[in-house]
This record gives sequence, C-alpha cells and structure tokens, in this order.
Amino acid sequence: MAYRVCFPEQHLVAVEDCEVGEPGPGQVRIRALASQISNGTEGILLHRRFVPGTHWQNWFDSRGGYPWRPGYALVGEVVSAGAGVDLRPGQRLACRAGHASEQVVDVAHCHPLDGAQDPQAAAWFALAKITFMGALAADAVLGEPVVVVGGGPIGQMAARWLRAAGAQPLLMVDPVEARLVHARRIGATALCGPVADLVEAVRAATGGGAAVVVDATGHAAVLPHALKMARDRGQVVLLGDCGNPGLQCLTGDVVSRGLRLVGAHDCHVTGAWNERRIVDLFTSMVRDGRIDLTGLTTHVVPARRAPEAYAAIDRDPAGTLGVVLDWQA
Amino acid sequence: MAYRVCFPEQHLVAVEDCEVGEPGPGQVRIRALASQISNGTEGILLHRRFVPGTHWQNWFDSRGGYPWRPGYALVGEVVSAGAGVDLRPGQRLACRAGHASEQVVDVAHCHPLDGAQDPQAAAWFALAKITFMGALAADAVLGEPVVVVGGGPIGQMAARWLRAAGAQPLLMVDPVEARLVHARRIGATALCGPVADLVEAVRAATGGGAAVVVDATGHAAVLPHALKMARDRGQVVLLGDCGNPGLQCLTGDVVSRGLRLVGAHDCHVTGAWNERRIVDLFTSMVRDGRIDLTGLTTHVVPARRAPEAYAAIDRDPAGTLGVVLDWQA
Amino acid sequence: MAYRVCFPEQHLVAVEDCEVGEPGPGQVRIRALASQISNGTEGILLHRRFVPGTHWQNWFDSRGGYPWRPGYALVGEVVSAGAGVDLRPGQRLACRAGHASEQVVDVAHCHPLDGAQDPQAAAWFALAKITFMGALAADAVLGEPVVVVGGGPIGQMAARWLRAAGAQPLLMVDPVEARLVHARRIGATALCGPVADLVEAVRAATGGGAAVVVDATGHAAVLPHALKMARDRGQVVLLGDCGNPGLQCLTGDVVSRGLRLVGAHDCHVTGAWNERRIVDLFTSMVRDGRIDLTGLTTHVVPARRAPEAYAAIDRDPAGTLGVVLDWQA
Amino acid sequence: MAYRVCFPEQHLVAVEDCEVGEPGPGQVRIRALASQISNGTEGILLHRRFVPGTHWQNWFDSRGGYPWRPGYALVGEVVSAGAGVDLRPGQRLACRAGHASEQVVDVAHCHPLDGAQDPQAAAWFALAKITFMGALAADAVLGEPVVVVGGGPIGQMAARWLRAAGAQPLLMVDPVEARLVHARRIGATALCGPVADLVEAVRAATGGGAAVVVDATGHAAVLPHALKMARDRGQVVLLGDCGNPGLQCLTGDVVSRGLRLVGAHDCHVTGAWNERRIVDLFTSMVRDGRIDLTGLTTHVVPARRAPEAYAAIDRDPAGTLGVVLDWQA
Repeated sequence: MAYRVCFPEQHLVAVEDCEVGEPGPGQVRIRALASQISNGTEGILLHRRFVPGTHWQNWFDSRGGYPWRPGYALVGEVVSAGAGVDLRPGQRLACRAGHASEQVVDVAHCHPLDGAQDPQAAAWFALAKITFMGALAADAVLGEPVVVVGGGPIGQMAARWLRAAGAQPLLMVDPVEARLVHARRIGATALCGPVADLVEAVRAATGGGAAVVVDATGHAAVLPHALKMARDRGQVVLLGDCGNPGLQCLTGDVVSRGLRLVGAHDCHVTGAWNERRIVDLFTSMVRDGRIDLTGLTTHVVPARRAPEAYAAIDRDPAGTLGVVLDWQA
Repeated sequence: MAYRVCFPEQHLVAVEDCEVGEPGPGQVRIRALASQISNGTEGILLHRRFVPGTHWQNWFDSRGGYPWRPGYALVGEVVSAGAGVDLRPGQRLACRAGHASEQVVDVAHCHPLDGAQDPQAAAWFALAKITFMGALAADAVLGEPVVVVGGGPIGQMAARWLRAAGAQPLLMVDPVEARLVHARRIGATALCGPVADLVEAVRAATGGGAAVVVDATGHAAVLPHALKMARDRGQVVLLGDCGNPGLQCLTGDVVSRGLRLVGAHDCHVTGAWNERRIVDLFTSMVRDGRIDLTGLTTHVVPARRAPEAYAAIDRDPAGTLGVVLDWQA
Repeated sequence: MAYRVCFPEQHLVAVEDCEVGEPGPGQVRIRALASQISNGTEGILLHRRFVPGTHWQNWFDSRGGYPWRPGYALVGEVVSAGAGVDLRPGQRLACRAGHASEQVVDVAHCHPLDGAQDPQAAAWFALAKITFMGALAADAVLGEPVVVVGGGPIGQMAARWLRAAGAQPLLMVDPVEARLVHARRIGATALCGPVADLVEAVRAATGGGAAVVVDATGHAAVLPHALKMARDRGQVVLLGDCGNPGLQCLTGDVVSRGLRLVGAHDCHVTGAWNERRIVDLFTSMVRDGRIDLTGLTTHVVPARRAPEAYAAIDRDPAGTLGVVLDWQA
Repeated sequence: MAYRVCFPEQHLVAVEDCEVGEPGPGQVRIRALASQISNGTEGILLHRRFVPGTHWQNWFDSRGGYPWRPGYALVGEVVSAGAGVDLRPGQRLACRAGHASEQVVDVAHCHPLDGAQDPQAAAWFALAKITFMGALAADAVLGEPVVVVGGGPIGQMAARWLRAAGAQPLLMVDPVEARLVHARRIGATALCGPVADLVEAVRAATGGGAAVVVDATGHAAVLPHALKMARDRGQVVLLGDCGNPGLQCLTGDVVSRGLRLVGAHDCHVTGAWNERRIVDLFTSMVRDGRIDLTGLTTHVVPARRAPEAYAAIDRDPAGTLGVVLDWQA
C-alpha cells in the first residue's frame, strides 16, 4: 500500500495510506525517491498563517482546505507509463508532485533526470526554479555588486544563481550565523545581524550600494532596508511571497534615487523559459559545479516519520534549510 | 528697485524689494517676463507640510528655513552678461531661478529660448523636465496602453510626453472633471472618479491592464490602486515626491504578477539628457504641436499681487493647473 | 464574373476573369474596394529581379512561379461569411489578399475596419505593419535624432511611426526632391542627394550622428553610408529586403564605434504584436492625426487598367509612392 | 641600462637599449616583470598587414611609423613615484605600457595588483579588458546557448567571461584541435573544423541556434557563417578588429530572422566600467577560479630574446596563445 503526507487539520501532520491507480493517457505512475519540503509554503499552509483575502486564502479554499496534501518537489522513478508517454520504467524524474510513496502524475509536470544524480540534491529543483525567476528578473550582474537579504532556502539558491551569473562581489545578509556558512562556501561575503543594522556595511562593501538587492526574506519589514542597500538607479528584486504585502512600504529612496523594484514568482514562466528548461539548466550547473549544493540539505528524514521533519522546521526555522523526506529509507 | 516673492514665515506670502548686483564671471543678470509657481513644491514649503526626517526637512533647513524665497521656473531676458558669458542683452532664457523681477544667476541654470515663444507657455519648462524624467523611466510606449493617475500639472505634462512617445490608448484618471478636459484635448480617454473606483474601468479600457501606469498624484494611498491598473509584468512609474513614502505600500500584485516599480525625479539627469537638452526638446515639440499646452495655464497673476496667486491655489487646488506670475503687467 | 491581376510571365501584367467559390468554415467572401501595390515586392516578382538561391527564389518556386497572382494589401467588404465566422455582410476589412474583385479568404488574414475610413488610405495597412516592425526593433526614440534613409513607401511610413514615437529631430535622406515633400509635411528635415554625399550633413544636423538610422532603401550599397550616419553606440535598422544581402558590407565603424545593426521584417510578429493589433493601432493613429497619410497615395488606377499602374511604377519609380487599384471605378 | 623591444622596420624585431628618466607629477617609474605580446595587433604592425585608409594606417602614421615600439600589457613594480602619486616602491602594477625593462608611465594607465598574483597570468589583463567589452555588449547569457567562433587569445578569454556570466551550453569553434583543449577545460563543447562546415553542428548543439555568437576571429569571411549560427532574433558580437571590414558582408538572415549585430572594442569604456574596475574584476575572478587561465600562456621567452617570441608566433600562429616576455629571466 502506498502512503503519503497529509495535514488533516491545522497544526497537524500525518502519514496516511492511499490507493494508486494506473496511469491514463499522458500520465505516469511514479515511485518516490526523495521529496523536499518547502519550509515556507508548507509551513504557511500547515499553520494557516495567511491573511484572509490574499491569494493564499483563495488557493487554499479552491482545493477544499484541510485535509491538505502538501509537496511539490519530488524526485522519483517511473513505475509504468500511460498511453502516449515515451518514458521507460526506472527513468528518474523531477516531478511537481506531492509527498507520496507512489502516485500518478501528468507527464507535463515531470522532467527527466540523468540517473547519476543524487535524488536528495535533485529535489532542490523546485526552489531552483523559483529563484531562477528572480535571477531572470534581475539586470545583468556580471561583475556587479549584488546583495541577497535572507539566507534561508530561497536566499541560498538565489545566491547560487547570481553567483553563476557573475555577480561580484556577492553579499549575503542574515541574522543567523549558521546560515552564512553556506554563503561563504560559494565565495560570498557574509554579514551577520539584523538587516536594519547592516545597511551601512552593505553600502561600504559594495562601493555605495548594490546594483541588485534580492529580498528573499518574505518579511514585509525588510523592504525599507533593502531599498537603502541599492545604489542610485539600482534594482530591488522581491523574491518569494510575503504573507502581508500591504505592510511592505516604500521609502523616499525609490523616487529620489530612481530605484527599480520588481517582483519574481514561480509562475513567471515564459515561452523561452519553461520549467523543463530551467530544470535542465539547474541539473547541468550542479553537475559542472557552477551551482554548489554542498551542505544545503540540512535534514533527511525517513518519509514514514514525516511529522518529525515538520516539527524540526517549527522548532528551529533558522537551522533548517533543505529538509528532505527519504522514501527509500 | 527690483522685487521678489518671499515666504516670511509659515502660511505667509509677501512681495519684498531687493537689490540686484552686477553679474560676475559665468553669470548673467536677467529681467523676468513670467514665472510659474510649482503648486506642489511651493505649497509644501509655504505651509510646512513635510514630515521631519525627510529630505524635505533637510533641504529646508540647509537653506535656513524662513524667510524662504520660492520659485524655480522663470522665463526672462538678459539685462547684462558677466565675463565669459556669450549672451546678448534681450536674449530670452528659461532659468532655474526664483520669483524675482530682476536677479543675477549662473548661466549654467539658464537655457536660451527662441524669442518667438510665449513666455507664459515657456514657463512650463521646469515641470516639463520633471515629467520627461518619468517618460524616460517608462518602457517604450509606442502603441502601448498607458494610464496617468492624477490630472494636476505633473500628470498633465506627463500625459503630453507619453502621448508624444506614441502611447495608445492613453488614459487619465482624476476625481475632478475640470482637469480631465485637458486630457481629452490631447486625445486621452478620461475617467472621472476616485482612483479606487476606477481600477476595473482602467483594466477594461486597456484590455487587461496598462503597460505603464504613471502615479503622478503624490498621494501615498494611490499606489495600491495604481498597481492593480498595470497588466501582468507591467510597469508603475512613481513621478513626483510623495510627502510620506513610508505610507506607500505594496500589494501582492508586485510579486504574483511580476510588476516593476520605478521612481523618477527631477534630479535624474544623465550624461545624455541634461536640462538644456530637455528644454530644447520641450520647446521644439511645443512649436510643432506634438506637445499641446492649450488651456493648461489656468491663472495669470501680476507678480506684484503674488499672494493672490498662492491664495487661489490654496482655495481651489483642483482648479489650478499652471499658475503664472506676470512680471510685465 | 470576378477578375483579378495576374503576371502570366516575366514582365507581363494581365487582368483575368476568375470564379469565386463560397466561403468554408473560418472563411469569408469579400468584395474589393481598394488594393495597394507593393512597388518593391511586386516589381521584383514581375521582373524576376531576384538572385538564385535567395529566399525570393524559394518563395517564387514554392508557389509554382508564373503565372503569379500578386498583392497582399486589400481593403474590401464582406459578401458572405462561412461557418463559425462572426462578420456581417458589408463589414469593411483589411485583408492580406491578392488583387481581385472578389475572393474567398481565411478570416485569420482579415482585420475589421471602421466603416468611416477611406479605403485607399486604409490600404496602407500592410506597409504600416512592415514598418512598425522597424519601429519596434529600434531603441526608444523619444527626443532622439533619427534618420530614415530612403523616401519610398517603406521609408515614408517608417518615418511616420518614428515621428509618432517622438523622434526629434527626424531626418529623411533621398536623392529625389519630390519624395522629400512628404517628409517635410510631417516635420522632418529633408536632405536631398546621393546618400554618400549626405553623411556629413546628417552628422551635423544630428549633433554627431543619429541614435537610430533606418535603412529603408533595399539597396546593398547604402549600408556603409548608413553606418557612418549613426552616432557612437548608435543603432542601424535594416528595414525591408535587400535583393542581394551578400553585397551589404560593414565598415570599421561597427567595431570601433560599437554600432548595433538589427534587421526588421514583416514576419516578426510576436505574442504581443500580431497583425490585428498593429492594424488597429495604425487605424487609430491615422484617425487622430498622429500618422498623416496626406499625399502618400500618388496614383489611383481603376483595377481593370492594372497594367497601367505597373507601367507607371516602372516608368517613374521615384515618382510613385502609394499606387492603389480602385475596384469601385 | 634599460632595454626595450622595437620594430626598426617592417618584418624586423630588435631589442634596443634606452634611457629612463625620472617620473614627473602623476607618473611612476616601473620595472617590468612580465609583458604579454598581443599576437594580433603586434603582428599587424610588425608586418604592416593593414589596408591603407583604415584606422590602422591612421594610428601607425600618427605615431611616426617605424621604428615602432610595441606592447600594451605589462606587469611591473614601482621603482619610484613622481609628485602626487601615492604608490610605494615595490607595488605591483598592471600597466598599459610597451615592452621595456624600465620606463616612466602615467599612473592613469597603471592599476594596482595584489602582490600574490603570478605576473605572467596577470599580464592577460589587457586581453581580459578587450574581451570583457564583448561580454558587456552581449545580452544576458545566464543559461543561454553561446558560441565563440575562434579559439585564439581573444576567443579563449571571451569564452571565459561568458562562462563566468552563466552561458550554458558554451561552444567553441576552431579549425585547430590544440586550441580546443582550452575550451574543454572550462566546460565548453568544442567543435573542430572550418567554420563553414560547422554551422549545422552548432545549430543542433544549441537547439536551433545560439542566443549569442561571438566572432573573435578577426577574419572577414567568418561573418556569414557566424550569422547562420545565431537563433532567430539572436545576437552576433564582433569582437576585435578585422583588418578589412569592407569584406565583412551580411546574409539574408539579418533581415529575415531579425538578427542583431554589435561591435565591441577595447576603447568602449563607460562611466561605470573603466579599465581599473575591469582589471580588478578580472583579478578577483582569477583568484576565486571563475576565470581559469591554466594553460593559456603557451610561451614564455626571456625578454632579451624577444625576436624569438615573435618568430614563434609567425611560425605557428595556431599554436601560440599567450606569449609572454619574461623580464626577470
């Protein structure tokens, strides 16, 4: 019998058994190897930390609320393929699919992986896509000073894309020293402390402000400080949902210094950059070392013990970056 | 004896006599023909409507506070020129200079005008420059739907630049019908009402949102509505100072729809676009009709009676667009 | 009996009778009001003035060569509509369709027009689309010096789009004085003479070279001179096919002055800018006067006498701009 | 006595003694450690391989022709500093200066280096600057397919910048297998053969053409093939002087596929990117490994034996990449 992760009600995580049907046309049945928890998104849904009237509420309601079945970053392999699907059993895939030992998914949401890749590393593909959208929204950064505010999973991955795009110097700002280790590993300058206290240090280290500031914190109160960190005519990229954007307020810097603010979101695929192409790029850059995932997966938990994984995130949000459910354990 | 406008203290406007010296090297002595009041800036300074800690406060203090001598948009003619200045007496000039019948100014702040131009029309040059900065900050608008929110002097002039750059359709939104007459005259679609009530009408008239929304209101509360008026991946240009940018807050549209927000300010001259070049462009476009100033100067007041001009602005802000002091009366 | 224009063999123009069937699903039967001859394209096909191996040869061969049935810019009205077509009889249309009194066309190639438009003016829609592609390929031109090299139909229409986008000054260069009248009418500075002789005059009139140079001549020998007319880091837009691009050679200006060269073609529609949207924009700008077609249609010939129209183009290429077949005569 | 390299006449290389004066204000006297020969530029001047009327001829004549004193990429250390120069003896510098054991140069042409750098590697700074101009002229390349045509010193360094900016896949095309080793070392796909034979292979490997093609060959005949290698709406960057640009001709691809061609040159510094900043960026990227110079210096020759270095280049142009004169030998 297959099993999957479920939030039966607010604050509760369970593992439940489930039936798995056969794949129809354009579908594939997959067996999970590893799936990454999205600390931000899944935490918001588990604890219902969203404001009524937001798109969060709309999304939650449109799928019937609790019981909620979380997850969107799974690496698995093909068990069987439906009509018209040209994938062989055993083919490894990156799938936009929930945390389940086996399930049927549309091939449109599955992207072939090279069998040699580590499933736990490959499970970063979904955060890689979100953050690539931020890198695309940023101006060209070759040789330009760039600051990433926030060293959580989104900030870490955004920093890797920007590093791969030639940002120099690359800075990361976070109040938690343990996260900054991961910035230093990729050659970034790491500044530890509350964002409000680091504006001047960032301006000094970037020669008067960054060309691009990425706010990867999801906290509304950060924006005014992020704006101060940009150089005149510089750019601030808002990456990742802020639960309460109505509290994200400007400063006089926007008008007086001609700053540019742009939002980036997972859904901003274009004709040129769809999910498949981004996954392929991510994979090739991990393989050749331009994106270094070393150390980013901080927790691996056997899938049967999924509630412990969510508990770990709640207990120590700053200490959890990549949290992976291991379906082979 | 020369005379000039002065704010001796908060809320008070006076006309005072003054001495005028001879121009030194690089200077010119000018006699005023017409000068335009900047309703926004001068009103803020006259009534001290700025928040402590802002750049307004800094600027006010740096020049010693009251008595304040206002004005920065004057059309005059040369009386005499200092050493090294190649301007003849009688040459007409657009000057960044205060409201005074005669004064000595640096030639760097003076731009030659063709003698055939109407001084009262030419006095729009300063607002033309500010708003040109907004047009430069905007993406290319040829054939693109553009909305100007706010039909005051800044909004009217911004609409003219955007029209000259090929915006189509061009919309203007303002709660005061009398201002919208000036939008319709240049072929814009005018929508009358509070901005919050017009979001849907703008989205319908632009086929799903504007490519560029210009917020020319200077009111913090407008931004959330302006954001809603932009199409996905569209742009919002903040044009003109908002007294309290800390109250200008975002909405989820920025991240979820990938909007881009950019500030534009009078000071954003570049190597390519300095004040002289903008004044020349403005002049040539007024001459050939691509910028139509008809009706925009709503009040002409003899300079000796300047207090009446400021009183008119206070009494009926919505009914005053261009207010000009006539120094030849 | 319906009739249409035909090139039975090289150098020969005829009017032949033809049958017209009933429109199938997604089609419409139309009656012609006016159709514009594309002097360039149709002349190349009539006289077989293309080099073997080019896309011209491929296109010609793919449609079976002679007899050739020319034309792609027709204004007509609906006679009857096929299944699933929501157009009423009498609806005026701009059609990508050949020169024929009646014919059946796919609605995908038909764009509704406002009944009040002059059909002979509206027949410029096809050249308007081609040249709009050039305006899209150009950098933002508000207030920038722009030169159009070549005052034929393509050059005239390109100049109108660039004027509508705010080019200032706008120059046109052509060896034929009669064509320059049409440039001056829209406020352009016209320089008469061989392009090689006017490089210095253009550089002087633009303050050191144009931001954008549009080569609308289709003559390979023009490019080196067009490059000289651009300012450092400026742009040269190649608009319209050159029969022999292998003779279009560079100069040292491209590398030493960092010029940018870009090609524009009728087929460069994008998701945002399809033919329908461009026709609508053209129509609205003609209506409000931002695009002025006065005088551009130099010849109107009754359709039954079409051979005379082609003969006129051959006899006096410089004196023929818009040549329209009148199907109501 | 100091000594320097000289071309006394066409085809002749000599080492001559020279006097060195004391540094005046704003100058510094330097002692050479290593200097890199610019195979292309110095070869053209040594053998007078330029066409009359070109900027090559102008430059050569303006400096009096032979005897010519070559070189512009020297790493040295300060001997003594003139008035107002804040550099200490022993400070290592990258200098735009000729091949000489000691000389006096303006500090404006000297850029401080970290003492830990290998002088022979650092001497690549001048080619690094030229090629950085090409990377700046290119569109953003993160994740985009990029082809460098030509694996000489310019092509190798351009490939390194584009790799550092995130190009993926990165291809290099060259007829000489030995050069392609250096492309493979940085993860590029190397295709060996005449450029004309590799168009289809490049199009296949890039999924239909490259986003950016860099023509780093300096050979006029390459351009038509480089254009074919670009995808629709793609970009071709011309990097480095072509001795005879009048033979660089277009193809129909430019217009029919909307290609963009741009030239890049050493002199294209901007306010933001001056030589100092580029040298600093190059230095930091060499240090952190994002630019890998391993193997690129193919020949090191004691400076006293400079004629042997030039002879090696003449004998085996394809086998010589970086050729360095060692002034410490």
